[in-house]
Amino acid sequence: MSDRSLNALHHRRKKLADLINFPVILWSGCRTPRNYPANLFPFRASSHFIYFAGLPVENAAIRLEAGKLELFVDEAPASSILWHGEMPTRAEIAQQIGADAAFPIAELGARAKGAATIAVQDATTYWQQCQILNRVVSTANALSDIDLELAKAIVTLRLQHDDAAIAELRQAAACTVDIHLAGMAATSPGKTEAEIRAAMESVAIARNMTCAYSSIVTVHGEVLHNEHYHHLLESEDLLLADAGAETASGWASDVTRTWPVAGKFSATQKDIYQLVLAAHDACIAQVRPGVEYRDVHLLAAKVIAQGLIDLGILRGNAEDLVEMDAHALFFPHGVGHLLGLDVHDLEDLGDLAGYAEGRARSDRFGLCYLRLHRPLQPGMLVTIEPGFYQVPGILTDPERRDRYRDVVNWECLAQFDDVRGIRIEDDVLVTATGNEVLTSALPTQVEAIEQLAIARV
Amino acid sequence: MSDRSLNALHHRRKKLADLINFPVILWSGCRTPRNYPANLFPFRASSHFIYFAGLPVENAAIRLEAGKLELFVDEAPASSILWHGEMPTRAEIAQQIGADAAFPIAELGARAKGAATIAVQDATTYWQQCQILNRVVSTANALSDIDLELAKAIVTLRLQHDDAAIAELRQAAACTVDIHLAGMAATSPGKTEAEIRAAMESVAIARNMTCAYSSIVTVHGEVLHNEHYHHLLESEDLLLADAGAETASGWASDVTRTWPVAGKFSATQKDIYQLVLAAHDACIAQVRPGVEYRDVHLLAAKVIAQGLIDLGILRGNAEDLVEMDAHALFFPHGVGHLLGLDVHDLEDLGDLAGYAEGRARSDRFGLCYLRLHRPLQPGMLVTIEPGFYQVPGILTDPERRDRYRDVVNWECLAQFDDVRGIRIEDDVLVTATGNEVLTSALPTQVEAIEQLAIARV
Repeated sequence: MSDRSLNALHHRRKKLADLINFPVILWSGCRTPRNYPANLFPFRASSHFIYFAGLPVENAAIRLEAGKLELFVDEAPASSILWHGEMPTRAEIAQQIGADAAFPIAELGARAKGAATIAVQDATTYWQQCQILNRVVSTANALSDIDLELAKAIVTLRLQHDDAAIAELRQAAACTVDIHLAGMAATSPGKTEAEIRAAMESVAIARNMTCAYSSIVTVHGEVLHNEHYHHLLESEDLLLADAGAETASGWASDVTRTWPVAGKFSATQKDIYQLVLAAHDACIAQVRPGVEYRDVHLLAAKVIAQGLIDLGILRGNAEDLVEMDAHALFFPHGVGHLLGLDVHDLEDLGDLAGYAEGRARSDRFGLCYLRLHRPLQPGMLVTIEPGFYQVPGILTDPERRDRYRDVVNWECLAQFDDVRGIRIEDDVLVTATGNEVLTSALPTQVEAIEQLAIARV
Repeated sequence: MSDRSLNALHHRRKKLADLINFPVILWSGCRTPRNYPANLFPFRASSHFIYFAGLPVENAAIRLEAGKLELFVDEAPASSILWHGEMPTRAEIAQQIGADAAFPIAELGARAKGAATIAVQDATTYWQQCQILNRVVSTANALSDIDLELAKAIVTLRLQHDDAAIAELRQAAACTVDIHLAGMAATSPGKTEAEIRAAMESVAIARNMTCAYSSIVTVHGEVLHNEHYHHLLESEDLLLADAGAETASGWASDVTRTWPVAGKFSATQKDIYQLVLAAHDACIAQVRPGVEYRDVHLLAAKVIAQGLIDLGILRGNAEDLVEMDAHALFFPHGVGHLLGLDVHDLEDLGDLAGYAEGRARSDRFGLCYLRLHRPLQPGMLVTIEPGFYQVPGILTDPERRDRYRDVVNWECLAQFDDVRGIRIEDDVLVTATGNEVLTSALPTQVEAIEQLAIARV
């Protein structure tokens, strides 16, 4: 690890010590079996462990107290050399991550008294946490006592990325730009979604990165978390791709582009695309310290509502329409979320990171899926991802059709039936005075998208 | 599902009923979280569930009794339509898999009395199994009572693949052939292992398949389960790639090829490659019903020992050398294993499938890693994968160097230091009268490999 990275780690450990006055144990977790014990899913260390340890060490724990780090990990058994090659020793790992001491896992129990922790995601390690701490470790919805205090302290740290984090996030973003360029270049009518997905994900694999989440590569963009890839691409389709790289040490990117399969938007597709892009651009222009992220979301809603009025799909005045959640018929999700080690950063802690203290989710149709409701601060990385979708489950719902019967022009909407789903998403870093779009190398303009989508052989 | 597939499923259920006289509940399992609850690893249903249900349904269970199948699964919540689109209803799934009845999961408890089961791999579902059956569900090393009886019955069925299974296994094999051809075509000096891996895995992704196991794509073939991909390919390197596709319904393939990065084997590389190939070919020629798989393994050991004698690396007589495990200095693993729904088929049951009743693992250096020790039967699919490796951990071990000091010509061996690891692996189906190599479309001969490896642009 570079001196700079080590300094960043020491700084994080010290800052944690400034916020709490009890010891902390963080587990990295273990690989989970796929179909039998020796066939495992790839390892993904707990993000909290990575944040303070810097390295995704399997089956390890760290104990943090007063800025010092103790590493707990077992040596690889001698027989593992045949199967896995020479493994780093405990001492080598300890040196690499700048540990102040290192012990076998068996000694963790004796050092566990009074320690706070965060529940890991794999059930096997979670039970170990409970056993070693000799108590039920609380999870996201029921965090309490020192675990809650620890979670709040970690949120404080992880909300605002330091330079070492931002360097990693830039790497993830750069790879993600190339993932999408590869997707556009690979697209043509008659291929399957799976083929485009392969072209995109192979960019990450080739750089020893992974995908930060299950890629969405679909001509049915109206299914928000679509994980099917079997459709054929038809000439008149739009392809919506939401895919992002994660660096080897776990930092994520999250980008969506929507492009025409045949390289050219239809007039109706272009109309809707332009209004989503207008929302995207207007929101990004608002991102700066002090701005309430919920206001950015409401701005997206208003720009989309106004655009739909201009196209004749909605009737009335944009502010009133947003007030009655009419925009959410077509833009039913939040405008974005925190991004960092997790693609929905810190979401393992529920809304603790996303919602400022004292705030809770609204139950309004147009706000309930908003994942971030805080004033923006320098060093925060957020996504901006407005969209337009024709979700049959929403638009054919009798109750909603009745409620919004006066404000939707259904005949007009029918003319836009070649637009099932459009989303445009970028990763936006809040800077001291404004923002920087980490994924700006990937174009958003209609003409540029058409050029890229048609540049293929 | 086709009528043919449904017939196969009914036949499997009926055959199970012929072997046992108690009810069985098999769980499919659930997706496990990666770094927070909504970011999940891909779903892989339990192989036993897939075998009888035919479809990888998440969070489901089936109850089998007297050839009848009851499906237990909950309907998707109404809100999921926004995120995941229209999901099949319980009734639709039941019809698809030919269930005789279908219920919500909550009703499973009332139908659980006296049922046997097999432990699933994910810890969350495992605890559900224990709760619903109201007992500790035994696992591989401690199977007992009706769970053991069930496991034996399932082994009996799954050891010999039916036509529906073989059709799936052929699909996996065909994809795997193309995966390796893509790898050879992508190889050239100066690239990284990761880039070749990307070219290979994208073939599976593009066909809506997945990789059956973590691909090995390495210039350090001497690390048997190498999962690092960061090395640069040098002109004088051999690249060892062990990768296989898994079909959407879970059937696996498992193939290894080793090819020269620069497209041409050196004289020493060719010498060793030819002797591994001789072992590979000799073993496959032996595969037919009634043959003891352990004898196939010992044949590989003997051919390799003889080849090493001929090259001057070993001294003595091949049979004596195998008797004293000297071959295992260079060929330390078994010649192969069962293949089916799992790449090490049924290994979640420990050695119950791999070792015939009354047989146990040897502790001999040359036999302890043998995963299959049974007479071959028609319908079995096995891998044949001899290899040669220079594993520093083995060859520099003082005890072994002492034990084998008279039989190894270390000076001669030193001339072969451009051969770190070579393995050649194919998937071989035992037929009524002999065998069929499912992956035979992928060449093994030196000249053909060189042509493919050099055909790239």
